[in-house]
Amino acid sequence: MKIALGQINTTIAGFLENKIKIIEQTEKAVKAGADLIVFPEMAVCGYPPLDLMTYPAFIDTNQKTISDLKKELPDNIAVAVGYVEKNYSGTGKAYYNSVAVIYNGEVIHTQHKTLLPTYDVFDEDRYFEPAEKRTVLNFKGKKLGFAICEDIWAENIGDSRLTYHIDPVKDLCNAGIDILIAPSASPFYSGKTAIRRQLVESLSKKYKCITIYVNAVGANDLLIFDGNSLAASAKGEIIMHCRSFEEDLQILDTAAAAVIPESNLLEINNKNENLEKALILGVRDYLQKNGFKRVNLGLSGGIDSALVAVIAAKAMGPENVHAYGMPSRYSSDHSLSDAQKLAENLGIGFEVLPIEQMFTASLETLKASLAGTQPDTTEENLQARIRGLLLMAWSNKKGSLLLTTGNKSEMATGYCTLYGDMCGSLAVIGDLFKTEVVALCRYINEKTKYDLIPENIITKPPSAELRPDQKDEDSLPPYEILDGILDAHIMKCKSFDEITALGYDKETVRRIIRLTEKSEYKRRQAAIVLKVSEKAFGNGRRIPIARVIYEIEK
Amino acid sequence: MKIALGQINTTIAGFLENKIKIIEQTEKAVKAGADLIVFPEMAVCGYPPLDLMTYPAFIDTNQKTISDLKKELPDNIAVAVGYVEKNYSGTGKAYYNSVAVIYNGEVIHTQHKTLLPTYDVFDEDRYFEPAEKRTVLNFKGKKLGFAICEDIWAENIGDSRLTYHIDPVKDLCNAGIDILIAPSASPFYSGKTAIRRQLVESLSKKYKCITIYVNAVGANDLLIFDGNSLAASAKGEIIMHCRSFEEDLQILDTAAAAVIPESNLLEINNKNENLEKALILGVRDYLQKNGFKRVNLGLSGGIDSALVAVIAAKAMGPENVHAYGMPSRYSSDHSLSDAQKLAENLGIGFEVLPIEQMFTASLETLKASLAGTQPDTTEENLQARIRGLLLMAWSNKKGSLLLTTGNKSEMATGYCTLYGDMCGSLAVIGDLFKTEVVALCRYINEKTKYDLIPENIITKPPSAELRPDQKDEDSLPPYEILDGILDAHIMKCKSFDEITALGYDKETVRRIIRLTEKSEYKRRQAAIVLKVSEKAFGNGRRIPIARVIYEIEK
Repeated sequence: MKIALGQINTTIAGFLENKIKIIEQTEKAVKAGADLIVFPEMAVCGYPPLDLMTYPAFIDTNQKTISDLKKELPDNIAVAVGYVEKNYSGTGKAYYNSVAVIYNGEVIHTQHKTLLPTYDVFDEDRYFEPAEKRTVLNFKGKKLGFAICEDIWAENIGDSRLTYHIDPVKDLCNAGIDILIAPSASPFYSGKTAIRRQLVESLSKKYKCITIYVNAVGANDLLIFDGNSLAASAKGEIIMHCRSFEEDLQILDTAAAAVIPESNLLEINNKNENLEKALILGVRDYLQKNGFKRVNLGLSGGIDSALVAVIAAKAMGPENVHAYGMPSRYSSDHSLSDAQKLAENLGIGFEVLPIEQMFTASLETLKASLAGTQPDTTEENLQARIRGLLLMAWSNKKGSLLLTTGNKSEMATGYCTLYGDMCGSLAVIGDLFKTEVVALCRYINEKTKYDLIPENIITKPPSAELRPDQKDEDSLPPYEILDGILDAHIMKCKSFDEITALGYDKETVRRIIRLTEKSEYKRRQAAIVLKVSEKAFGNGRRIPIARVIYEIEK
Repeated sequence: MKIALGQINTTIAGFLENKIKIIEQTEKAVKAGADLIVFPEMAVCGYPPLDLMTYPAFIDTNQKTISDLKKELPDNIAVAVGYVEKNYSGTGKAYYNSVAVIYNGEVIHTQHKTLLPTYDVFDEDRYFEPAEKRTVLNFKGKKLGFAICEDIWAENIGDSRLTYHIDPVKDLCNAGIDILIAPSASPFYSGKTAIRRQLVESLSKKYKCITIYVNAVGANDLLIFDGNSLAASAKGEIIMHCRSFEEDLQILDTAAAAVIPESNLLEINNKNENLEKALILGVRDYLQKNGFKRVNLGLSGGIDSALVAVIAAKAMGPENVHAYGMPSRYSSDHSLSDAQKLAENLGIGFEVLPIEQMFTASLETLKASLAGTQPDTTEENLQARIRGLLLMAWSNKKGSLLLTTGNKSEMATGYCTLYGDMCGSLAVIGDLFKTEVVALCRYINEKTKYDLIPENIITKPPSAELRPDQKDEDSLPPYEILDGILDAHIMKCKSFDEITALGYDKETVRRIIRLTEKSEYKRRQAAIVLKVSEKAFGNGRRIPIARVIYEIEK
């Protein structure tokens, strides 16, 4: 049997656009002689549509699209396509997350999803009723079983606090299938591609069936779908691998598939290569799907904004990237020259706007009101906010989308100014700790084979330059230590005692936990963060603002 | 049997504070001769703790608190207290949302929650496994059944797209109970108190059992718990009603309870009285639970900031409220004089900071960069952002929490400036449409028996005053029409066709839907909105940013 893997990039609620894409890919698959083409989970409406599903018109339009596809798809090919089905049983949630197999104008098979991820960024129990049963499709002499995304993860759930009651793959395989087909919308995080590969291999081997894993590609807001669709033989060998971070259409002949050489699968394991591609796709799709072509940002001469500028230039083309250098009375000379050099290397627009006049005006405006007070972070925040205001002026005037440049270490500890450097629609590197930012910059320079990012930007001590001779390390521990504590506290949910048992100083741990938890109000108003780790700030980590920080009470 | 209703205000993760409160209330109940005291759902840890539950230490501390209570609670009284229990079965989610009944140092009964709301602001499937069974507690000759919050709502679910598979109350009543006890954390929205009363009455009547409904009180971030705990006789008559929007402890003698006169229950139905109380509690608890005493805000002379100032003064005392009037070259004279008059009426601090110097400085700073462009909303946003910057300076310098003053109509249509008038930690009236803002102001003036809010503020045509002679109606339809369309689109999830069928102009509906959906990126960075309606902006309405607005495609 010839099976096409239709790894497409869909848009949320883009019923018409998505339908056209499905039909075009199917036509190509027909030309290549495919018997079946498989599209990602919820390809008809995009994933995740979230509360758009609370609109009956959304569900109806999605079902109308299935009706249209029945009429408009070519004949003589089976098309497995994800959509939202209604639950007509009268109990439970109103909808199913489903796959329909359309063949010669008819839906010949439907499978609802059984395991509904409701952890991290996923809220599927909010919308869907789980499948009551899993059935086998007999098609052209083969027995096919459909397992939708999470359905294949029962043995390896993304939440350690959960054990599913059912294993849909086991269920299907017990019923006897030749081919396991897994339409998915599995978002990227660093390291996930390798985990996914291992899963597909082990399921195929365990159940002695071919597995066809078709993942979505493209970014929807914070989620980046990496593609990397796979097929494995009944021996558990990889016999097909689609491109990462771009659309792809590959045809697998199940009767004559060769094992993919390991050398062709190396990128799966390259952390920085994947991170760079993920962030580029994340920026590009957020812009395109929101109707923007141009981006702007502030270039401070520091490493964070430098990395964002590189990503932006690669995502949108340097001609669509515009940067302001905005020196203050506290800026060092190298800040401006480093930023300027980077802008030249990238070929992006760069202008210098000193903030002194506005800073002076703000101090004078506030003089009487704040009379008798001492300088503190207020004056530092003023500078950051003036910069945010100038960047937003360019954004508004030019129809350009402002990117914000804070990293995860800053966002964690609140070492950033709300309505200041936090201005912007998309936090490009908000899910990279500072140490990861440095590593990715080094990777990019190595790959470019010259200092695309000037070495001084990478090596100089990080500073916000908001008061004389300020350094990040005046307020925070060195980043290696900070990131270690944050990894334990945020990523691994360790307790105060467990973190100090790792060897970190008690007072430092206490201070970092306090800073992190006290900064939740800032993160709640932050730009959406491109998710590239197992736990990103945003809807994958939902923390109350008003709370007792019981963790550090004595 | 004498049953105490312990309507307490708990803090998220405030294990120690909550425990002390539980013990103190229990001691009072003992003095009053109570056999049993009932506390709200999850009283030990506060509701909702959200992803704090992903920290094992959180669950352990919560269980340690139950152990402590066993030792520290007085004897001879049964104490029903909500907490998080571990699921030791090995399958499903790791935790239960449970109530323990502690008596003489032992847990004599445990009931897990069966129905886990996973819609609107609720995410209980994210954390909890549903109860497998519901059991009856025999205590002092009475049969007691515990149903936790949503468990009593099976016949009247807050999500029309859902029908539960089980009705826990029916289950318990079939097993035979004398008293139904419902520890709850049921957040307020306008009209909900009356719905809740009706439910308690009808369940009691239907199943011929006494119902004891103990609700939480106090605000946790966006959610305001209104108290209003109730008891109904087996005939469905209200025999106990606790205070609304404040803590209360009431003792019900089930053998000798009198029916509460209807005149004592009138406030349940008074929309504006409840709204005012809810917002005051929402502001007060957000401040107190975050460790703030003082608030500040901008007073524009318009109705929205006027209402927020009134609420703030009532919540924190006028001496803790500070306002800036920030006139620009486009401000009318009455703006400043109206704001000044209001501040005097309220007795709050008021200072005038003209923004002209900063506005000029910003235009000059940007002059070369934006050369050759025409004035547009960029210059309007500059003014709003300068005001935000000044307000944040006061906030930073004085340790005062900035309140943002936008209403729901503005937040819906994006008629507000991100990082400008949207600055602030709490959107006090962000869940009131403009027409509701006007109605609440009129109510407040009527109640005060004089124009606490100067009449001119209420009656003048709304204007942002960001360009010469600007009026809201230049950009938006009249608020009666706008709010009607928004109610249909946002609150009732109606389609374009359904909304125009109500009689609204097609182009206007198209424009309002487009504005609303295109403004999602602003709302994602908005302050948390105090929820006072069935559907508030925030985590009760989760809409993708990058999407096709299929609703208005032709």
